[in-house]
Amino acid sequence: MNYGVVIKLIGNLLMFEAVALVAPLGISLYYNGPDRNAFIFTILILLSLGFWLAKIPIKSKRVKTKEAITIVTIGWIFVTAFGALPFMVSGALPSFTDAFFETVSGLTTTGSTVIDDIEILPKGIIFWRSFLHWLGGMGILVLALAIMPTIGVGAFQIFKAETTGPVSDKIAPKLKDTAKILYTAYLGMTVIQTVLLMLGGMSFYESLIHTFGTVGTGGFSTKNASIGAFSSSYIVMVIGIFMVLSGINFSLYYDLYKGRFKHFFRNIELRVYLGIIFVSTILIAINISSMYDSPLESLKHSFFQVGSIITTTGYSTVNFDLWPSFSKAILFFLMFVGGSAGSTGGSIKVIRIVILFLLVKREITKLLHPRALIPIQLNGRMLPSDVIASVTGFFFLYVLLFAAGTILLSLEGIDFTSAASASAASIGNIGPGFELVGPANTYSFFSNPSKWLMSLLMLFGRLELFTIFILFTPQHWTRD
Amino acid sequence: MNYGVVIKLIGNLLMFEAVALVAPLGISLYYNGPDRNAFIFTILILLSLGFWLAKIPIKSKRVKTKEAITIVTIGWIFVTAFGALPFMVSGALPSFTDAFFETVSGLTTTGSTVIDDIEILPKGIIFWRSFLHWLGGMGILVLALAIMPTIGVGAFQIFKAETTGPVSDKIAPKLKDTAKILYTAYLGMTVIQTVLLMLGGMSFYESLIHTFGTVGTGGFSTKNASIGAFSSSYIVMVIGIFMVLSGINFSLYYDLYKGRFKHFFRNIELRVYLGIIFVSTILIAINISSMYDSPLESLKHSFFQVGSIITTTGYSTVNFDLWPSFSKAILFFLMFVGGSAGSTGGSIKVIRIVILFLLVKREITKLLHPRALIPIQLNGRMLPSDVIASVTGFFFLYVLLFAAGTILLSLEGIDFTSAASASAASIGNIGPGFELVGPANTYSFFSNPSKWLMSLLMLFGRLELFTIFILFTPQHWTRD
Repeated sequence: MNYGVVIKLIGNLLMFEAVALVAPLGISLYYNGPDRNAFIFTILILLSLGFWLAKIPIKSKRVKTKEAITIVTIGWIFVTAFGALPFMVSGALPSFTDAFFETVSGLTTTGSTVIDDIEILPKGIIFWRSFLHWLGGMGILVLALAIMPTIGVGAFQIFKAETTGPVSDKIAPKLKDTAKILYTAYLGMTVIQTVLLMLGGMSFYESLIHTFGTVGTGGFSTKNASIGAFSSSYIVMVIGIFMVLSGINFSLYYDLYKGRFKHFFRNIELRVYLGIIFVSTILIAINISSMYDSPLESLKHSFFQVGSIITTTGYSTVNFDLWPSFSKAILFFLMFVGGSAGSTGGSIKVIRIVILFLLVKREITKLLHPRALIPIQLNGRMLPSDVIASVTGFFFLYVLLFAAGTILLSLEGIDFTSAASASAASIGNIGPGFELVGPANTYSFFSNPSKWLMSLLMLFGRLELFTIFILFTPQHWTRD
Repeated sequence: MNYGVVIKLIGNLLMFEAVALVAPLGISLYYNGPDRNAFIFTILILLSLGFWLAKIPIKSKRVKTKEAITIVTIGWIFVTAFGALPFMVSGALPSFTDAFFETVSGLTTTGSTVIDDIEILPKGIIFWRSFLHWLGGMGILVLALAIMPTIGVGAFQIFKAETTGPVSDKIAPKLKDTAKILYTAYLGMTVIQTVLLMLGGMSFYESLIHTFGTVGTGGFSTKNASIGAFSSSYIVMVIGIFMVLSGINFSLYYDLYKGRFKHFFRNIELRVYLGIIFVSTILIAINISSMYDSPLESLKHSFFQVGSIITTTGYSTVNFDLWPSFSKAILFFLMFVGGSAGSTGGSIKVIRIVILFLLVKREITKLLHPRALIPIQLNGRMLPSDVIASVTGFFFLYVLLFAAGTILLSLEGIDFTSAASASAASIGNIGPGFELVGPANTYSFFSNPSKWLMSLLMLFGRLELFTIFILFTPQHWTRD
């Protein structure tokens, strides 16, 4: 392990976080909020610590897998810990446990909250909370790579460790360009949605907050009632559609931009993703139709909630925990699907589900032709057996962590549905679950150990499991 | 497809079922029960139909994979449909749906019941219901193979399709001998447990019924309160220990018999299986300690229930649905572990869980050494990648069917925990679940479509998924 380069890059990352904090500071100053000093204090700490760490002399700038994994994992923990300071110093969440939970929930784009009344908090704090979604959505280190001077050989390893899905494609030959393309698409979506929300009558401030929550598939709102606080169907549909757009692989937007429409429309993950949304929306709309005035109204709420859960955003327009069992069961299992690889969505990801389906199909064929060698094809290309093994390992580990989370959260004495959905909502970076953690409730009632457990599950989910597990292997920490 | 050999063997199987029905007929005659005619009627139908089918002239006696899979699947469905007749004719369960559900639940060793009061039924019917556990436990076709004259080349394919686990080992060079060895061990266990229960004061009749339910890991009892109706701790422990013994790979008992103790004790699946039982028992015993008079009492109930769920038997000594959430969550996920491969237990099986763990471990190592080729070893031998692919495919398909089952059962309007545990209990061949399908309730309240769905899930679980799916592929039905 090249410890020098790890420390240096984490130093750079902390300085980058200080820069990011200028945005909420600006909001605070503009509204003359009481949270101004909390931001100034945090910025100063980050700058001095970051500067000091970044000064470390290093022998080699080379970042190999080991270093990349360490930088990403330790980096995320540091960014969360320091990002929690404004919540603590401003008095919004005085407990470190609560502040850490809220920050990691923001950064991992989960959107679970321990704040029972968000509407009384200062605007700067609310902004920071949602801005974390935006920063974490596409990957804070990927953003740093796109903006900061090149950090040496091997940055692709960092990119791989932070972006989602089983395979990370470089769109452009240079990684810096790939990161820039992704962030341009991300920024473009952000600008368009903000403008569209403002056209619907939302203030600039509220439009920004909800855009961060949407494009980052996070789910933090300015309102306790989430999107249910906005009666306009236009606003609901804008947010609904942009949630679904944010669950699509961002590199596909580059295909669109380059005019490669075939590439876009023939993409299997995209088709399955849209197919699942379509079928689930119809089934739930029929199931809840007696609860709403018109079929269109049912369809709207159904589409919004399906989009919100599958993309792991977590916004809600109504208390879907009051829906019939069938609708809730569909939503529960959508929690395990997630967005597409290379999107800001969490959970298992559609592409992995597709690969697992193809694997099952092959196994059935193999029983009929035991000696045949049948390759698994995806988007016209043969899938390497390495990828299949990593996808199946990921799936098992995901289910295992979900089960372990459910069992441990049951120590709170809560019912099974609450514990299971809290575990699934944490590891899948979703936010609300059912029963005690339904959309009308918050996570504030949990004990501190459970809050730490869920914080860990959110990190596991966002960094796609393996990355964190590696840190626990002794081989990882040996010097080369 | 060689249809001739399929029809002939199913004819033989039906005649075999007629012979099996002589046992409950004997019970009925002994107790002078009102169910006598129901058995005689069924036996006559089976004999005439079976005789007529078995007469079909065939060109080749060769059974290939295709034929084996068809024989096993269609065979199980036929045996169930005709096995349901005594329930209908005797008036115990007049509806075909209910009678089919109860029979498939018996034969697949699930133990779910739609009978609200078992204690009022005639003794012959109760005996037949439990005898189905015994017949289905090790595989009714395997039993037929062990007893009937050789059925031609390729019987191993049938053996493979009916026994459990990812790999089917022939213990003896000849399959007939393998089947005989397995059934000798099975019969040995049956005799020993029956004698031990009789020593505890149980009648011969009740001892037999509970032994069938134990060694077949089925769970049908003569009492509505299951094992809770017997106050003797000796009886509870005999059944508890024999449940655990029945969840062990039966070929390991042959190792013991042959003096290969190393083989036995170094078996990884056995160690993990016992390890899970040990840890779960301790955790639950601590969690429920305040509910019982002494730590020993807690330990007894905890051990019994853990053994009952992991082996997929489904007996209960107390209403475990009243236990604290933590204990219930552990039991819920034990429903997905199951017994060992080659045992009479259902669900995913310990060996598959072990292989998935090894896969995850390898994936983590591979991230650190991306170019290394790291084989997965089990019991000192390299695991072929074919087996790994079939295990991972199995796991995904199992979770998928569980999810689909839960969603469809939710159409009943029942809560999530009831639907999820009913689905898991059906596909895992367990029996009781939680809430509405807890140990104090039955499955009688479900609608007919749900009962058929659960019957299908039980068959899927018992025949280990793939076997049934193959029947839905068009390639399967082509003539060679």
